[in-house]
Amino acid sequence: MKETVSDDVLREYFPDLPLGPLDGYRRKASFDWRQMKLVYDTLSTIKMKHDIWSFMEQHPLFQHADLPLTMDEQRHLAVKRMYALYNERFAPIEKIAQDPRIFQAESEAMFMFDSSLTVKISLTFRMFSNSIQGSGRPDQYHFVEDVEKAKIGGCFALTEVSHGSNAKGMRTTATYCPEKRQFVLHTPDFEAAKFWVGCLGKCATHAIVYAMLISKGINHGLHSFIVPIRDPKTLKPFAGVTVGDIGEKIGLNGVDNGFVMFSNYHIPKEMALDKLGGVDDNGDYKTPFRDPSKRFGASLGILSGGRVHITSISTNYLQKAIVIAVRYSGVRKQFGAENGSEEMPVLEYQQQQIRLLPYLAATYAFRVFCSWFGTTHVQMTIDNMMGKTENAANKGMEMHALSSAVKPISGWTARDAIQNCREACGGHGYLKAAAIGDIRNDNDANCTYEGENSLLVQQSSNWLLGVWPQRNIITPEQTPLGSLEFLKGVDRVLTETCRWCNAKDLVEPQNLIETYKWLTAYTLKMTYEKITNLKQSGKSSLQARNESQSYNAVNLSVIYGENFILNHFYKTVKEFEDEPCRKVLLKLVALYGAFLLEKHMATLYIGGYFTKDQGLYLREGILQLCSQIAPEAIALVDTLAPPDWCLNSVLGASDGEAYKNIQNNVMTYPGSMTRPEWWKDVVFWDTYVQSKL
Amino acid sequence: MKETVSDDVLREYFPDLPLGPLDGYRRKASFDWRQMKLVYDTLSTIKMKHDIWSFMEQHPLFQHADLPLTMDEQRHLAVKRMYALYNERFAPIEKIAQDPRIFQAESEAMFMFDSSLTVKISLTFRMFSNSIQGSGRPDQYHFVEDVEKAKIGGCFALTEVSHGSNAKGMRTTATYCPEKRQFVLHTPDFEAAKFWVGCLGKCATHAIVYAMLISKGINHGLHSFIVPIRDPKTLKPFAGVTVGDIGEKIGLNGVDNGFVMFSNYHIPKEMALDKLGGVDDNGDYKTPFRDPSKRFGASLGILSGGRVHITSISTNYLQKAIVIAVRYSGVRKQFGAENGSEEMPVLEYQQQQIRLLPYLAATYAFRVFCSWFGTTHVQMTIDNMMGKTENAANKGMEMHALSSAVKPISGWTARDAIQNCREACGGHGYLKAAAIGDIRNDNDANCTYEGENSLLVQQSSNWLLGVWPQRNIITPEQTPLGSLEFLKGVDRVLTETCRWCNAKDLVEPQNLIETYKWLTAYTLKMTYEKITNLKQSGKSSLQARNESQSYNAVNLSVIYGENFILNHFYKTVKEFEDEPCRKVLLKLVALYGAFLLEKHMATLYIGGYFTKDQGLYLREGILQLCSQIAPEAIALVDTLAPPDWCLNSVLGASDGEAYKNIQNNVMTYPGSMTRPEWWKDVVFWDTYVQSKL
Repeated sequence: MKETVSDDVLREYFPDLPLGPLDGYRRKASFDWRQMKLVYDTLSTIKMKHDIWSFMEQHPLFQHADLPLTMDEQRHLAVKRMYALYNERFAPIEKIAQDPRIFQAESEAMFMFDSSLTVKISLTFRMFSNSIQGSGRPDQYHFVEDVEKAKIGGCFALTEVSHGSNAKGMRTTATYCPEKRQFVLHTPDFEAAKFWVGCLGKCATHAIVYAMLISKGINHGLHSFIVPIRDPKTLKPFAGVTVGDIGEKIGLNGVDNGFVMFSNYHIPKEMALDKLGGVDDNGDYKTPFRDPSKRFGASLGILSGGRVHITSISTNYLQKAIVIAVRYSGVRKQFGAENGSEEMPVLEYQQQQIRLLPYLAATYAFRVFCSWFGTTHVQMTIDNMMGKTENAANKGMEMHALSSAVKPISGWTARDAIQNCREACGGHGYLKAAAIGDIRNDNDANCTYEGENSLLVQQSSNWLLGVWPQRNIITPEQTPLGSLEFLKGVDRVLTETCRWCNAKDLVEPQNLIETYKWLTAYTLKMTYEKITNLKQSGKSSLQARNESQSYNAVNLSVIYGENFILNHFYKTVKEFEDEPCRKVLLKLVALYGAFLLEKHMATLYIGGYFTKDQGLYLREGILQLCSQIAPEAIALVDTLAPPDWCLNSVLGASDGEAYKNIQNNVMTYPGSMTRPEWWKDVVFWDTYVQSKL
Repeated sequence: MKETVSDDVLREYFPDLPLGPLDGYRRKASFDWRQMKLVYDTLSTIKMKHDIWSFMEQHPLFQHADLPLTMDEQRHLAVKRMYALYNERFAPIEKIAQDPRIFQAESEAMFMFDSSLTVKISLTFRMFSNSIQGSGRPDQYHFVEDVEKAKIGGCFALTEVSHGSNAKGMRTTATYCPEKRQFVLHTPDFEAAKFWVGCLGKCATHAIVYAMLISKGINHGLHSFIVPIRDPKTLKPFAGVTVGDIGEKIGLNGVDNGFVMFSNYHIPKEMALDKLGGVDDNGDYKTPFRDPSKRFGASLGILSGGRVHITSISTNYLQKAIVIAVRYSGVRKQFGAENGSEEMPVLEYQQQQIRLLPYLAATYAFRVFCSWFGTTHVQMTIDNMMGKTENAANKGMEMHALSSAVKPISGWTARDAIQNCREACGGHGYLKAAAIGDIRNDNDANCTYEGENSLLVQQSSNWLLGVWPQRNIITPEQTPLGSLEFLKGVDRVLTETCRWCNAKDLVEPQNLIETYKWLTAYTLKMTYEKITNLKQSGKSSLQARNESQSYNAVNLSVIYGENFILNHFYKTVKEFEDEPCRKVLLKLVALYGAFLLEKHMATLYIGGYFTKDQGLYLREGILQLCSQIAPEAIALVDTLAPPDWCLNSVLGASDGEAYKNIQNNVMTYPGSMTRPEWWKDVVFWDTYVQSKL
């Protein structure tokens, strides 16, 4: 099933790594780090990333700055890089249609270098066009052409100041005026201003705006419109549009997030994206859907692609952080045996292993999952455009549920991994030049945009709770992605208890998979029963749901998503041809699964699945796996690492010369060794403060 | 025991809060938010903070900037603020000696406003002087006087590029030259450069430098020296000293962390801080200690004050973040009952409560603990200076162990709380103006400086493991701080199991305390046995310790520290006179304890203390406590909050007008509504990129 790529071809793309302090670990590895790439990459994705990185490496705009840039400088640079890169058309839609995997490879290559640049490209060119292609009519496709030629720049305006996740509560209106055949856009107050809109702060000329469509006094709910914001020739906003920048954020400061308010702003009727529903010239509402709430769902359906994409974005951050921390742990030496022999690399210490290696395993699990997930989603979108609608509703529903579960898991896993990496690098991890701080700040956005994680997980738990009563009659058509496989024989599974009584057996991949099946089923059953009991005790549906979130519905979504990722990882690994790689990968499957289970161990005991010392054995198994994986860790991150200039971390370079790289950095950055211009304010402080000392 | 302060006096310092959207919650509170302050504050600490904040509020240097500052601007500003504030002498040593609590109050007031400023004051003036007073001789006190008059500025240089925690591995040398009566300081290579030294990058004129003292060819280990770095009149470094700035960090960028290398740099013999050991004029080594390793310990003893201080610093960050997130949760409304009634504040949702309220409880627990801990440490230091040495060794040892446990707990709790607060604020939490990002970035340093947390905890676990065999013969003298109280009747305690079988009983403070006693004892016993078994199986002492860190020794230290904080919180609260406050505080004790236990629940089952559904009851108890505390939460954070101008968060202001504050912010910051200067690079992008589109 997997494509084979010869060692010679791989060597062309990945030359030998520089000799240095990491040699010892590299020699210890039992597998070929280049071949390992094929567990998630193909020759075409390898080539795509290589081409993009080569272009960047040779282009003056893509060189790193010596000193931190101001917010305005960051934005200016992101814009210039955006046009330079977009102009190359590395992954145009025609190419993606032929080979869906390159979509994610392009994104990965860009994110590894500069998150803001990538977000800008995605919003300016893609999300805008996708909205028009998804909800618009062919006579509106000239906007898509203009965007493709970069004559105009788009953005996507849904969130309002006081309403994000609750889309039904939004208050921007588009009132139809039949006399003029126009819509009048209006923002009643600042709380209804569109806010957080990426690329709107300084650049966008057009926005996809979601507003309540009102006609003949009736509110038909949220609809989208193409709205001219700024004159594409001058970038000055049109009269009736108040648009601005929302200022500095925790990260992603190359992206100009903005806000916009409309003051009775007229746009032609032709600007309505009304394929799925809208008014006719007279103002009467027409929709192909019989149930209007379905239209609303379908019009928001476009956002599921965002979640799939973010799952992958978080994985990119995770990947960068783990490469940096593991490499540095391989060269940083502290303490040693009592007899005063040489100090040991900190990677040899148990506590260092346990805070890094499970996340290394998670990185592989996510990288493998995202390759499949992204491709599956692109394929679904293409099928949709081509009119292949076989089982589309079930596919769409399961994709919605799964993406609502894995987007939070991926963001949170990256969050925790990055923080562990940051601390595992000790003090030097706090240097900006280590790069982990920026990775953390950029990833942070993933936890709240496109659905605040803790709320988003309700999408999947609600779906699972709806499925539970039919658990014994689920057909394969109902779960085309296979995420409900855990329900097979579920009533029998729930009567089982853990039958392994030593560390080795407990962390066998097949046994971990079985345990996860029980855990997923148990959490679903318990959540379902809790809600049922709450309702029976007289609580409303909203109350019952609210009071069954913590420890129940939230955990349910997370466990459901983890179960899928773990199973997918195991299935992929089992089929991987290269034997030395496969052996190590199976250990990663085991470590990932065992590490996840350890976090849910209390529930395993509460549910009676674990008894007595089984928890101790599981922990022992994790520690054993860590010590087995440690000698492979450097080669495992070599597989994952982008080129050094792209990673741009003094601690994570492939030469392992962390201290020399720090030295080079601190000795040469502008002003590092010079007296500050304000030195007189130190020496003569009593000239501006009247001394009382 | 507690001082009483009348409502009228409290009202003078804390005027009524502005009316607004938080009124409803404020009316619901069952206690007086001003009286509640007295659980951790006294009139003198309230006054201290008030005086400092009043000074800042009225001083032009302490106004917030409109736009983010560059690193150089941040440093310049921190320096000017430092001199302006230090000049006021709010808490000189004489005042602290009379009332040790004001030391921490001063620090809290400063940290709530600007971390960098506070770190700079502490390093420039205090740590330098403390070192001289602790390890120096009276003829060296003129340096202390010069620092006090701000004629010179100090810093503290211990960490080297490749050695932090392993102080014995340091390689900077101070070789004695009897002919000249001088020491020759030398740095063999960059890896031995002193690094991370706060205030050394741009400002310090003198450093306390730790170096290996070599005389007559013998290395006598690490000793400290007063070393002139820069000319106090010009800020130019002296010949033989290579000094520079280490560049941007994740946070705390107002502090100029630096590095220094010495090239056969001569200093007079008088610069050695040799009270605890050093060479005579001939170069023969003399020390009042019989065992030279004790001298090393004593000379590093000064660092324990750093840990006590950091415990409090993390608590300040925790406090700011929780105020912001809880207040915003009280005004941010999303969704509502099905019948379309008004939306509910998100504070009413279970999942929002569980990610904020346990940390609100933790904030109170830490605030109360730090008041005692800081005062106790200051008192110990004063006793030491006054020659009161009764039971000093035991006190010092227990303080060392306890501070090594609670510094990590405090940093990690703040880390997790801040991240929860950030996410609980949804998208707007990602705004820089929300202030949570900077709090996170500043707190991050606490997890690795003055002992990387995961390593530091070994100090306490090693001490506890040493104590275990004597558990039945511990005298009160051996545990003057009371942290070993859990060992009372420990062998009997370990035979017990949990006897409470409903949520209410399980989360009774007294029962939680009992459960924690079992947990602490069990973890200590298990760790001790694991090490013993490893040694019996032939592992070296280093190996045995290494292989018993994860899930054992690390958890042991954490649980030991938590146990102490929880017990201390409960004891303080029980004695608090104001009844309405006390009732709420007891709920906070319960929530804090139950929340901690939930995280260790797997261990409670593994050890057989919990069986069957007890875990479910504990979780149920936590949720019940959350819903009981939610109506009190706004008043509880009103107690904790610094003045609005000091908190400086658009989401966390006391008026509850988050959206108006956001509006004001985004509409008025420089450039928010103007076209960027580089607008032509958007419109005419094909002038710098040759279009292929």
